[in-house]
Amino acid sequence: MDWILHLILLLGSPYLTVGFVNNDEVQTLTRYILRGPSRNSGLEWLEPLVDDFGHRMLCRKSLEDAIDFTVERLRQDGFDNVHTEEAPNMPNWERGEDTVTLLEPRNLKLNILTIGGVDPAKVTAEAVVLEDYDLINTTNVNGKIVVFNQKWTGYYEDIKYRRAAKEIKALGAVGLLAKSLGPFSIGSPHTGGGSDEHLPAASLSLEEAELLGRLARRNKTLKISIDIRSKNLPPCTSRNIIFDIKGSEKPEEVVLISAHIDSWDLGQGALDDGGGMAAVWQAMKVIRELGQTDKRFLPKRTIRAIFWTAEEHGFAGAKHYYEQHKNGKEKFYFVSETDQGAFKPTTTKSILRFMGNTTQRAKMQEIVQSLKRNDIPISVQEGDKQGDVQSWADDGVPSVQYVADKGADFYFYFHHTTGDYLNIFEDGDIDYTAAIMGTLAHVLSNQDKW
Amino acid sequence: MDWILHLILLLGSPYLTVGFVNNDEVQTLTRYILRGPSRNSGLEWLEPLVDDFGHRMLCRKSLEDAIDFTVERLRQDGFDNVHTEEAPNMPNWERGEDTVTLLEPRNLKLNILTIGGVDPAKVTAEAVVLEDYDLINTTNVNGKIVVFNQKWTGYYEDIKYRRAAKEIKALGAVGLLAKSLGPFSIGSPHTGGGSDEHLPAASLSLEEAELLGRLARRNKTLKISIDIRSKNLPPCTSRNIIFDIKGSEKPEEVVLISAHIDSWDLGQGALDDGGGMAAVWQAMKVIRELGQTDKRFLPKRTIRAIFWTAEEHGFAGAKHYYEQHKNGKEKFYFVSETDQGAFKPTTTKSILRFMGNTTQRAKMQEIVQSLKRNDIPISVQEGDKQGDVQSWADDGVPSVQYVADKGADFYFYFHHTTGDYLNIFEDGDIDYTAAIMGTLAHVLSNQDKW
Repeated sequence: MDWILHLILLLGSPYLTVGFVNNDEVQTLTRYILRGPSRNSGLEWLEPLVDDFGHRMLCRKSLEDAIDFTVERLRQDGFDNVHTEEAPNMPNWERGEDTVTLLEPRNLKLNILTIGGVDPAKVTAEAVVLEDYDLINTTNVNGKIVVFNQKWTGYYEDIKYRRAAKEIKALGAVGLLAKSLGPFSIGSPHTGGGSDEHLPAASLSLEEAELLGRLARRNKTLKISIDIRSKNLPPCTSRNIIFDIKGSEKPEEVVLISAHIDSWDLGQGALDDGGGMAAVWQAMKVIRELGQTDKRFLPKRTIRAIFWTAEEHGFAGAKHYYEQHKNGKEKFYFVSETDQGAFKPTTTKSILRFMGNTTQRAKMQEIVQSLKRNDIPISVQEGDKQGDVQSWADDGVPSVQYVADKGADFYFYFHHTTGDYLNIFEDGDIDYTAAIMGTLAHVLSNQDKW
Repeated sequence: MDWILHLILLLGSPYLTVGFVNNDEVQTLTRYILRGPSRNSGLEWLEPLVDDFGHRMLCRKSLEDAIDFTVERLRQDGFDNVHTEEAPNMPNWERGEDTVTLLEPRNLKLNILTIGGVDPAKVTAEAVVLEDYDLINTTNVNGKIVVFNQKWTGYYEDIKYRRAAKEIKALGAVGLLAKSLGPFSIGSPHTGGGSDEHLPAASLSLEEAELLGRLARRNKTLKISIDIRSKNLPPCTSRNIIFDIKGSEKPEEVVLISAHIDSWDLGQGALDDGGGMAAVWQAMKVIRELGQTDKRFLPKRTIRAIFWTAEEHGFAGAKHYYEQHKNGKEKFYFVSETDQGAFKPTTTKSILRFMGNTTQRAKMQEIVQSLKRNDIPISVQEGDKQGDVQSWADDGVPSVQYVADKGADFYFYFHHTTGDYLNIFEDGDIDYTAAIMGTLAHVLSNQDKW
């Protein structure tokens, strides 16, 4: 149990700080998680959440029950300031028994998932298959169902296909079938948020988007019928979950680590974003436990964790929280999220997607160097996709989103599919993510200034 | 186009034979496929079969239509002896809207596929989760639904779980839920053949078998309801497809390469076994084309290709053919099948699963050496699973089943799932399989004796 020996040595010696990162502090925290008493605790914490409540769709009982269950556990853990804050007017969309059927050249019920937010609609029309987005500008799509059969180039590059409703509707299209956003499939379409336009729209499995592509290349006329029963319902109120480790010197300066609790209505939302929640919880639990053993470990600034609601619906929960707090007396010093797979980083292709200025970036580099010294390979990369913490990032608060190497590709095997289950995580995945989030939170809560 | 140069050189020079394998002959054939005019032709041949007819379930119109389409194409190709032979009394099973629902500890419609051959049944009972088959002998399963949540160790090792109905019924079990037979899943259960017993039985997705396993380990009582609507119907008659390249010296001695045309009622049966068919067709086409260019390339024995029906139902089509022909005047000299993924071999973990005596095995080794010299890594391995050609293998006819390295594991990502689509094949997969099957057929059709 080398972490115990290390802790004893640490308690007997002053922290040795080079730059603003104290490597002993990072070592204590990461060893406590990866090889010490906290090992596997995040995964164990996650199990009853996803197994007992299942997926947690916004405006559904399973989400609100899961929120209650989580708050109760956080109170038992003894965190500071455990509470929920209401997020009113949340989008309420319910999936129905939707069908999309290829009628010609042969009858085949297609393997689809309706895109979130679409209202009931029926349409039968000829389909045109486009292998690239820009072809909408040179192809007659008027009166047609547009089928996108793009090559996977990455989620953020390809999301325009799923969100094309408004643009293709303006060109006269009567329906949208977008190839699912992922690099690999076993008959597994992906859902996700779409446009507000009431154009019938669904994601096709990779296999069947490619089938339609091949049929079109052989000059077959494709006739497709779309029958959407899904619908929007009156808005609901949901809740964000907040819990703190109160800062000893600057309690009103907040270092934020976060993940989201809501999910789509498929699988059990373990990957997206139960694993993120578990890593955030584990990081918080470890900082609290180490602080109880050694008061010097307690943070100077407040470390706050938030489990957002309504992430899957345009970050609606986080945006509401931001609006409520942006003019408050608390100052957000740093914000972060983990929502692209709480995976173990195995190469320095694992990144902290960072927004901030040059000085701040240099500090991130120091943190990353310290993580590397503790066998956590990772690098800093500029990027502007910060998910739920985007509002603060846009405000100039330094921000990070953790993306493991597996988060760039493997994550999208399962994202928004029926395959989003706890077994995606391998031993250590959540531990490593917790070690990264905990290190960020702890180091930044204690530095003098940005 | 080095194959043309090679062909010219070959035509001008006598075959150089070391042992019984003529390496020039193998090189001509493999180059013609892998880098010559036949490149990609198998994959192109397969496309309309799977895209225009879809899956091809026994006793369904799509199978018989696909048989007619295939026969017509073979006739146009000019093969000898193109015909079908009826296989009567074939099992006729139709999947219904089957549901399996977890009632306690929470309500969840489980992600299942009924096991083939099961008749309508309804049962609600407590479930017991077993992580290993042998636990049926030490666990009280009387009145219970048995859920198997085994670790994947391989298809042939684990198939006992799917076929456990008879045995667990004898112990008083009232239902069977078997974890799907595969190493990896994206919410993708696998179907397959089961037992004849009328015990309600279905395959669970990996994810949900593991979910039930975790709930049981946390001492939750599991209550499950099974409602099977699938049913057996009166038997039907289907057809095997036979086509030859007639032997020039020993036409009544048959060298057989084969694959099966029927599939389960999911996906499009491209992997299982459209790819096998395409490779067999491509091998036959190439041998015929090379023989037209150079008469010396024509086989001395008859090379026969068969596309079996009813493979998915206990090899019923092949067994019928065997019974009809075992006492005929034709002598089966060698039999083979490709039905475990028509993939490119990338390592010598790719095998010819071989049954035969020591002398025959030595000859297989020579063929394999020649394939290796032509950049096709493969090895010979003893094994007794020869699929549709098992009857001949059991009779002592030397036999081979081709299993690429990807056939051991990756194949079972898709096997009997909704993900069995043409896109599984990468560039070259079917070409390489055709090169192997073609080499086996051609070399063995021309050797003096075993």
